[in-house]
Amino acid sequence: MRFARFGVPGSETPVVESEGRHFDLSSVTPTIDPAFFATHAADDFAAVRAALAEGTLPAFDASGQRRGAPLDRPGKIVCIGVNYSDHAAESNLAVPTEPVVFMKDPSTIVGPDDEVLIPLNSTKTDWEIELGVVIGQTARYLASPDDADAVIAGYVVSHDVSEREFQLERGGQWDKGKSCETFNPLGPVLVTRDEVGDPQNLRLRLSVNGVERQDGSTADMIFGIRHIVWYLSQFMVLRPGDLINTGTPAGVALGIEGTPYLRAGDVVELSIDGLGEMTNKFADASATSPASAPASPTTLEGAAR
Amino acid sequence: MRFARFGVPGSETPVVESEGRHFDLSSVTPTIDPAFFATHAADDFAAVRAALAEGTLPAFDASGQRRGAPLDRPGKIVCIGVNYSDHAAESNLAVPTEPVVFMKDPSTIVGPDDEVLIPLNSTKTDWEIELGVVIGQTARYLASPDDADAVIAGYVVSHDVSEREFQLERGGQWDKGKSCETFNPLGPVLVTRDEVGDPQNLRLRLSVNGVERQDGSTADMIFGIRHIVWYLSQFMVLRPGDLINTGTPAGVALGIEGTPYLRAGDVVELSIDGLGEMTNKFADASATSPASAPASPTTLEGAAR
Repeated sequence: MRFARFGVPGSETPVVESEGRHFDLSSVTPTIDPAFFATHAADDFAAVRAALAEGTLPAFDASGQRRGAPLDRPGKIVCIGVNYSDHAAESNLAVPTEPVVFMKDPSTIVGPDDEVLIPLNSTKTDWEIELGVVIGQTARYLASPDDADAVIAGYVVSHDVSEREFQLERGGQWDKGKSCETFNPLGPVLVTRDEVGDPQNLRLRLSVNGVERQDGSTADMIFGIRHIVWYLSQFMVLRPGDLINTGTPAGVALGIEGTPYLRAGDVVELSIDGLGEMTNKFADASATSPASAPASPTTLEGAAR
Repeated sequence: MRFARFGVPGSETPVVESEGRHFDLSSVTPTIDPAFFATHAADDFAAVRAALAEGTLPAFDASGQRRGAPLDRPGKIVCIGVNYSDHAAESNLAVPTEPVVFMKDPSTIVGPDDEVLIPLNSTKTDWEIELGVVIGQTARYLASPDDADAVIAGYVVSHDVSEREFQLERGGQWDKGKSCETFNPLGPVLVTRDEVGDPQNLRLRLSVNGVERQDGSTADMIFGIRHIVWYLSQFMVLRPGDLINTGTPAGVALGIEGTPYLRAGDVVELSIDGLGEMTNKFADASATSPASAPASPTTLEGAAR
């Protein structure tokens, strides 16, 4: 299955795609969020599959509707840094001997076509296409990487937008350059594990203004997905609806001669085999106007539950 | 006012303390969480104050009840590292020229008296008492530190439990040693800004098994609270219900001869002037038994909304 959300920011309709058709999932869940995975991932979304089989879900017309992020308000975003050796080389970073772990503000998530804001005082806003892993079931102290698949709900295209000065030149910890407003476009669909095939053999591509900048394969990860999930579970509890960004291949601005960082008006297109594509148009942030598509409706003043 | 939560983990009753008496806040909000602050902080909790004045809130008998964390499921936990010069010296870290920012898994929060788990394979679990700042209103690109007070809802005692090997010796980024299960005891009360007096003049004290280990003052922060909130708002959006841990004074195990890290059975007592005290008993984590008091009910399998 493929889960998606369509509609205006904060009021998206949860949708399931099956055999190319869209169905409204509102009768099963109000949204695609941690509670949805907590309730439905353990039995492999049996209620959703049954509703599809019985034909009880109304058809949904997605045409003309904004595509929202297919994951609403993850509990946390955990990121793996320097997880492709070609990206390590271009970044002048050593190939790590164990996963480099950092975090991103969960409220940075926006839809796959939403505007991305270049922060005030930023001169080094950079792109990073990554395979996103969405956790389905609680994972703590997994005994081996072989146990990882069972806790993974599915996969998604994730854009780990990064401000290199904030990340690398302003005090030593990376989170500050990773957590700016709108810095995690996600989508367009969350594809369940059973439909992805081998997640360790997916091509990732990213272009800026039509110029191809990244063309990698998840086959080239230094630490594979199962290892990452097992590893993280030794240090923290992974919970349903958590997102893991698994690292980016070579080709980011940081590693390109002349460092062509992003400017207002730039258009970044991203795609991963079988997971779809997104288009992020960049604009300058304003001190007075928040992003038009915030990801966390419950944290906005006066928002309804 | 002082907000608190009492009862079994995941089903705590929201309570407001006024003039030493407890009142059940369930008629105003189901819990003390980001949505509560998003709805009620902008008008300085007018609905709560009115209900108290009108006597419409039922009295609440807290005797014998477990104290829960007074903040339920923050959107993020942002931490300031090395923010007291005496702690910088004991940690062999330079005094930073701007705030060092890292993050902690928001699901690490547990109640002020809940058991704290020493992770599997941990030999360097350490304590850190910190003043916690709870955000009341959205803050992005604040013009000056003078604007910070308006977005702060209140203050709380926060225990930024840290595993030093995971943090400092396992790959360069700190979050991994800060995000272990149960690593952020919080409470017992969230005291609104108007009742705290000068938050930059509070004594913080921590003892381990009755031996005093930390005795500092928020007057000694390198970067003060207003500066931190203003600074963070240049890099990320602070949202209602976010928690900021503002750093710890000297006296952690990392800096003590013989490094007396925590062991199962150890008891850590913490207090901050006017914010109350908590007692954390440490126990060994088990691969098969999760913590008894998880902080994120919506992310547990089958949890009700």
